[in-house]
Amino acid sequence: MAKGGPPLVGITATKSGDFSEWYTQVVLKAELADYAPVKGLMVLRPDGYSIWESLRSTLDAEFAKGGVRNAFLPTLIPESLLSREAEHFAGFVPEVFWVTHSGDAEVGDRLALRPTSEALAYEMYARWIKSWRDLPLRINFWNTALRAEIKATRPFLRTSEFLWQEGHTAHETREEAEAEAGRVLETYARVMEGELAIPVVRGTKSEREKFVGAVRTLAVEAMMPDGKALQMGTSHFLGQNFSVPFGIRYADRDNVERPAWQTSWGVSWRLIGAMIMVHGDDKGLVLPPRVAPLQAVIVPIYYDGDAEARVMAKAGELLAALRAAGVRAHVDSRSGLTPGFKFNDWELRGVPVRIEVGPKDLESGEAVVVTRHNRAKARVPFGEIASVRSAMDAMHSEMLAAARASLESMTRGAASYAELARLVESGGFVRAPWCGSPACEGRVKDETGAEIRVIPDGGAQGGACVACGKPSAGPAPLFARGY
Amino acid sequence: MAKGGPPLVGITATKSGDFSEWYTQVVLKAELADYAPVKGLMVLRPDGYSIWESLRSTLDAEFAKGGVRNAFLPTLIPESLLSREAEHFAGFVPEVFWVTHSGDAEVGDRLALRPTSEALAYEMYARWIKSWRDLPLRINFWNTALRAEIKATRPFLRTSEFLWQEGHTAHETREEAEAEAGRVLETYARVMEGELAIPVVRGTKSEREKFVGAVRTLAVEAMMPDGKALQMGTSHFLGQNFSVPFGIRYADRDNVERPAWQTSWGVSWRLIGAMIMVHGDDKGLVLPPRVAPLQAVIVPIYYDGDAEARVMAKAGELLAALRAAGVRAHVDSRSGLTPGFKFNDWELRGVPVRIEVGPKDLESGEAVVVTRHNRAKARVPFGEIASVRSAMDAMHSEMLAAARASLESMTRGAASYAELARLVESGGFVRAPWCGSPACEGRVKDETGAEIRVIPDGGAQGGACVACGKPSAGPAPLFARGY
Repeated sequence: MAKGGPPLVGITATKSGDFSEWYTQVVLKAELADYAPVKGLMVLRPDGYSIWESLRSTLDAEFAKGGVRNAFLPTLIPESLLSREAEHFAGFVPEVFWVTHSGDAEVGDRLALRPTSEALAYEMYARWIKSWRDLPLRINFWNTALRAEIKATRPFLRTSEFLWQEGHTAHETREEAEAEAGRVLETYARVMEGELAIPVVRGTKSEREKFVGAVRTLAVEAMMPDGKALQMGTSHFLGQNFSVPFGIRYADRDNVERPAWQTSWGVSWRLIGAMIMVHGDDKGLVLPPRVAPLQAVIVPIYYDGDAEARVMAKAGELLAALRAAGVRAHVDSRSGLTPGFKFNDWELRGVPVRIEVGPKDLESGEAVVVTRHNRAKARVPFGEIASVRSAMDAMHSEMLAAARASLESMTRGAASYAELARLVESGGFVRAPWCGSPACEGRVKDETGAEIRVIPDGGAQGGACVACGKPSAGPAPLFARGY
Repeated sequence: MAKGGPPLVGITATKSGDFSEWYTQVVLKAELADYAPVKGLMVLRPDGYSIWESLRSTLDAEFAKGGVRNAFLPTLIPESLLSREAEHFAGFVPEVFWVTHSGDAEVGDRLALRPTSEALAYEMYARWIKSWRDLPLRINFWNTALRAEIKATRPFLRTSEFLWQEGHTAHETREEAEAEAGRVLETYARVMEGELAIPVVRGTKSEREKFVGAVRTLAVEAMMPDGKALQMGTSHFLGQNFSVPFGIRYADRDNVERPAWQTSWGVSWRLIGAMIMVHGDDKGLVLPPRVAPLQAVIVPIYYDGDAEARVMAKAGELLAALRAAGVRAHVDSRSGLTPGFKFNDWELRGVPVRIEVGPKDLESGEAVVVTRHNRAKARVPFGEIASVRSAMDAMHSEMLAAARASLESMTRGAASYAELARLVESGGFVRAPWCGSPACEGRVKDETGAEIRVIPDGGAQGGACVACGKPSAGPAPLFARGY
């Protein structure tokens, strides 16, 4: 360690050896997040929040294309309002944080901290929607949801407050609402693959696993390297389940009053957890380049003052060229730290590209360019340093392809209950015929711990239900244990 | 009213006649915001939120220039932590919302809903800051603050939860922290004038009016048309008041441990309230063009199907030309509504530029362009429609100049206590010599309702204190009643 330098403590667990410990170390040591003083709550540090801001900006642009606008809802919801849709409410009750006092005064109707905003949004929608002219109404909220977690919490994956977006739409017809739910799911899948390089399976949740209050829940699911599935996002067709109790009624084109058709949909900072798990390695974080807060770091190498001036001048030139090419770049000019220390530090933080420039490179006219995901080294002429920009597209494609290969290798078919149980035990998705009954689904869950994660669009059809042997009509679901 | 059209209910109060009622009607009828089901809480609708997003984006760019990064802190703060800085805590106690239960279980240490994040941020900073290498640390949080309002609430101005940003920095030296607080205040002033066209007075708060826990509070104040002052933003030099109790200590360059020097600073959605009050008129909202969600609306005018096709084609061309020039533009193609109805609707919503195009305009080759702030009409050749882009800069300057003239006419000097009391009664800022004693300040407040809003930078010096007659050494403060 260099004199005066901070201790760099790398990741001491391996991804294959102790996945859970490895994950926690990456989150904390790459400084994405930290534990808040309240158990189960998390602080997002600037590098972590920057990834969230990048996703937000991409999703905002996608949502805007579909006519969605952002707005703000307060954190507090009266208990009486939250309970108006009884089934929905029952689903959240054990997790709700309750405000009972303001200052020394007791509040009358207890106030819930938003576990989700359907109740509050739809109370407002009922006021705002009068006629077909007010439809479709599409509003998205970037906020947090608060749900007291009783199980063991985990940064990004299971926390009692999480950053997310929740979109809520209202439509004139069932068809329009159903199409909306489908379109948003496709947007989610595209952003996950296009920004985070995480391949997902698109499909539908079973009745048992759907969002309480929804008619149908569409979902995108991903497979983590430890063999557990992760729900990446959901898009719900709500039918008129909320518009009836909340009175969201509109005068149609014939001036007949009708309840609106609705959808709601969301993704959370869980996406960042998935990104860490899917791409990280034993050295630490590996950031998909499009969401990386910093995309390229230039590490100047010198051992005396004379070389320093020349190397730093070149580093400055390369920085300017990279920025001009639209690359988020930085020169690590920290004094008193060795190049080796800096290499390890930036690898731990997952920066996609490292550029080394020292006296020998000045002579050869080339920089050493190291890509984080495969740790490959190349020599790039100084004048072509802007090629880092297009190299990042290649990196993205390689990371996505590797993750897709992993997803495929971890998705297997089972024709019998015994095979299902055995495959579930070893992790991954298990595709198996199912008759459609909640009883069979429940048996699998109780006996193997695997639930139906998603019934894929266009999946294989037919076969005998692995649980009861009755013929199955629909597409075979993917079973797995999950986060 | 056109057949099938919604009723347009314009503003029924006048700005000069019943300012308070006028304000509320503009907020609600221009659809910037609405009341939430919990008293004192507000929902921000898409047009209102869009203004907030515009301010956020401008401030983010400004903050980034100063090395500030964004991050996320959770909503809940344990009571034990919040109370660590006793004076600070005492200032918030009556307003804190307390969570006592999650689900059916009682929580141990009560959890406060964030009234402000000093305590939580600094608990984290104490963990993150080890040495001078970690400084300066500059993080900003876009979140909400929750403070139960007992007084009458008002949209944007006094609500129990409000959107804001809070920046928190830590530095090696007092000088650097003081400079930071000053630089942020200047950024605030520049954004308020440059984006919202609201002139502000920069200066310092008195000891009595400063943020509890700060060594010194810098502030920007504005004057509203009803004669009441509005605090637009504050920037606090915290000294070591928090770093000592929270243990934010760093090893300096000589490896000696020292408490860091700190600042915190924030602006809230109050800025939107100020914008409404300063620029609005009896027709409704008047939006400064740079923050307007929609900057130009094209209203096609036709009375038969033949004209319709030609007019709509031209409207489409103008729309394309405006968008190509970077103007946020829209064609109001709603059917069944008269042009007059549409004009009133867009005036109520404050859209800066209205462009009318009808059959006669097609013949003359010119559109009628109406600017919202002065309701001036001009004829602009179709080919020059992109001039709307530069016209908006002129609009901004005119709105700022008008607001500045109003501020100046509402700022008067008083040499005696009687004059001060009389001028306070009629509204506006009153500049008056003050000896600096809290007793004299308190007497003015108790007897006239005016407090020291700000001690302006570079203000007039000297004179006899209006309250006690003793000579005053410092610059004369501005007294006013305020929001």
